[in-house]
Amino acid sequence: MAVPPHLAVDAMGGDEGVSNMLAGCALAIDANPELTLVLVGDQEMIAAELPKHPKLQARSEIVHAAGMIGGEGNLKDILRQAKTSSMGVAIEMVKSGRAQAAVSGGNTRALMPVGKSILKTIPGIDRPALAALLPTLGDNDVVMLDLGANTECQARNLVEFAVMGAAYARAGLGLGRPRVGLLNIGTEAEKGTDVIRDAALQLSSAKNLPIDFKGFVEGSHIQRGDFDVIVCDGFSGNIALKTIEGTARFVTDLLKRAFTSSIRSKFGYAISRPATELLKHHLDPNNHNGGVFLGLNGIVVKSHGSATEKGIAHAIGVASRLATNDMIHRISSDLVAISAKAKP
Amino acid sequence: MAVPPHLAVDAMGGDEGVSNMLAGCALAIDANPELTLVLVGDQEMIAAELPKHPKLQARSEIVHAAGMIGGEGNLKDILRQAKTSSMGVAIEMVKSGRAQAAVSGGNTRALMPVGKSILKTIPGIDRPALAALLPTLGDNDVVMLDLGANTECQARNLVEFAVMGAAYARAGLGLGRPRVGLLNIGTEAEKGTDVIRDAALQLSSAKNLPIDFKGFVEGSHIQRGDFDVIVCDGFSGNIALKTIEGTARFVTDLLKRAFTSSIRSKFGYAISRPATELLKHHLDPNNHNGGVFLGLNGIVVKSHGSATEKGIAHAIGVASRLATNDMIHRISSDLVAISAKAKP
Repeated sequence: MAVPPHLAVDAMGGDEGVSNMLAGCALAIDANPELTLVLVGDQEMIAAELPKHPKLQARSEIVHAAGMIGGEGNLKDILRQAKTSSMGVAIEMVKSGRAQAAVSGGNTRALMPVGKSILKTIPGIDRPALAALLPTLGDNDVVMLDLGANTECQARNLVEFAVMGAAYARAGLGLGRPRVGLLNIGTEAEKGTDVIRDAALQLSSAKNLPIDFKGFVEGSHIQRGDFDVIVCDGFSGNIALKTIEGTARFVTDLLKRAFTSSIRSKFGYAISRPATELLKHHLDPNNHNGGVFLGLNGIVVKSHGSATEKGIAHAIGVASRLATNDMIHRISSDLVAISAKAKP
Repeated sequence: MAVPPHLAVDAMGGDEGVSNMLAGCALAIDANPELTLVLVGDQEMIAAELPKHPKLQARSEIVHAAGMIGGEGNLKDILRQAKTSSMGVAIEMVKSGRAQAAVSGGNTRALMPVGKSILKTIPGIDRPALAALLPTLGDNDVVMLDLGANTECQARNLVEFAVMGAAYARAGLGLGRPRVGLLNIGTEAEKGTDVIRDAALQLSSAKNLPIDFKGFVEGSHIQRGDFDVIVCDGFSGNIALKTIEGTARFVTDLLKRAFTSSIRSKFGYAISRPATELLKHHLDPNNHNGGVFLGLNGIVVKSHGSATEKGIAHAIGVASRLATNDMIHRISSDLVAISAKAKP
């Protein structure tokens, strides 16, 4: 039986400040009337904004945290600041069981180590990874990871990412046996690095996992809808993710230029407005906001720093879905299955 | 004074066969009346097609080569087949000075080692790289390399790629001091791998090169027009290139869906046709066909296997421009400058 989601939100994270974060929280409450939130941050600032959102006010409590983490400085400084920061206190609530998940728009450079130091990794996981859902032409989004948490990876990391990503697809997308691909520069068995080929071998032989391993996938096929999970090291993943963003913007900018190139096409554009709005909706990163740090002993969702209130609401929705569907437990049990298989 | 371009074309390479290759050659001749071509391949097959293109017939000669290289088998097999193949014979003509550049639509897996074994690398170059021009929102295309020839790279390889890519931008785009960026997962100095940071340090200190080194560039900024040359290892480059292709197709497919979603938007689409045709033209890979193997002692241009005749003509145009502007000599002299600088 699903427990109604109760989440901690870092109300201070995000480039746009408290008022934007709370507006996002209010939208999330509108979308899911079962949801309750803990708003973590400066008591006074939150209390000043909250009356603007009566429904949110009725379904939330404030937990005071005076500090903020900027993401500058060395790791030691960041971890020291974490204890009293809105980010750290929100994640601490997941650890103590007072919230099922934490959402923050704070800096990734801080969020990853703070999450890891408070929640620790799931037993059997060497390194957590950042995963996100990307739109495809298929029936569902694709889970892609790692998107930048691990610049360099070993084969065992990629295998763990596949297990975690598949658990995400099962919990977040409701898929029974997700189709998993390894991002590579070709689909032939001999392509790529030793690390990738080794990971492919390990995944091909892990028959008892709830994973349909489909081999290699090229950058050209990320959004085709042929895969539910795409696994890569954090360097390639970050390059691919940002290249997708950049190219989508490039194409829409070209389109805008083309549409304003003549009076005739301006007229056509005006008529086609509903169609181009549909495209805009599909490509708006706010409709895909919410990266998840997989591999931690608890759910931490990263909202983009520049997310709008719609984007923040989307990230809260992601956290809520994963909490309700018990993702952490799924990852743990899949890891037990793979390590049982790995032992001779 | 520029010598009129005289190029060798592998008439057998390419998925669509001789008739498509010759149609492309004919288009290239139309576009550049100074151009003369050597058509390398099966004498009989070429002679049967050539009368369809009287202008091409008047400005070309046939050189017979019976064999073809498929790209399968090990490196030894490929190099053995090269001697009598249309690809190998075309490249051999560059070596002997009978042509200024070779163009082939054959398999990259064969083209790179065959080019390297026949032409050898420019002194000072450790590894050749595959470069291509990508469209941007700026005034000119951007040269991106490596796109897949070198899966793993050291810092010195990336520095060489920067030098070669800049020479390409100077010869191919007519830029005096190209703006060079290193592809990375962030623009801050501490981002990325040791290899990338080391390459950045070396490029920052090479002040005597005709390069304006601008630091790191993210995947989101490849097509913004802020860089003339983007340097990366062959793995990331291939991922980025294919992700660009895939995303452009994804967005245009979404657009098509959006435009056919209602009668009103179908009507708008019909009116905006000139605008969407303009977009199609910009995104058509045939208008950007022609990868260049930089670092060889001679110009070898790779046409995409599935290029249309327009694409083939574009690749021949690239080869012709680089030959006329003496790219190989520019790379060599820039390398002399950088190695003089590197010595204490």
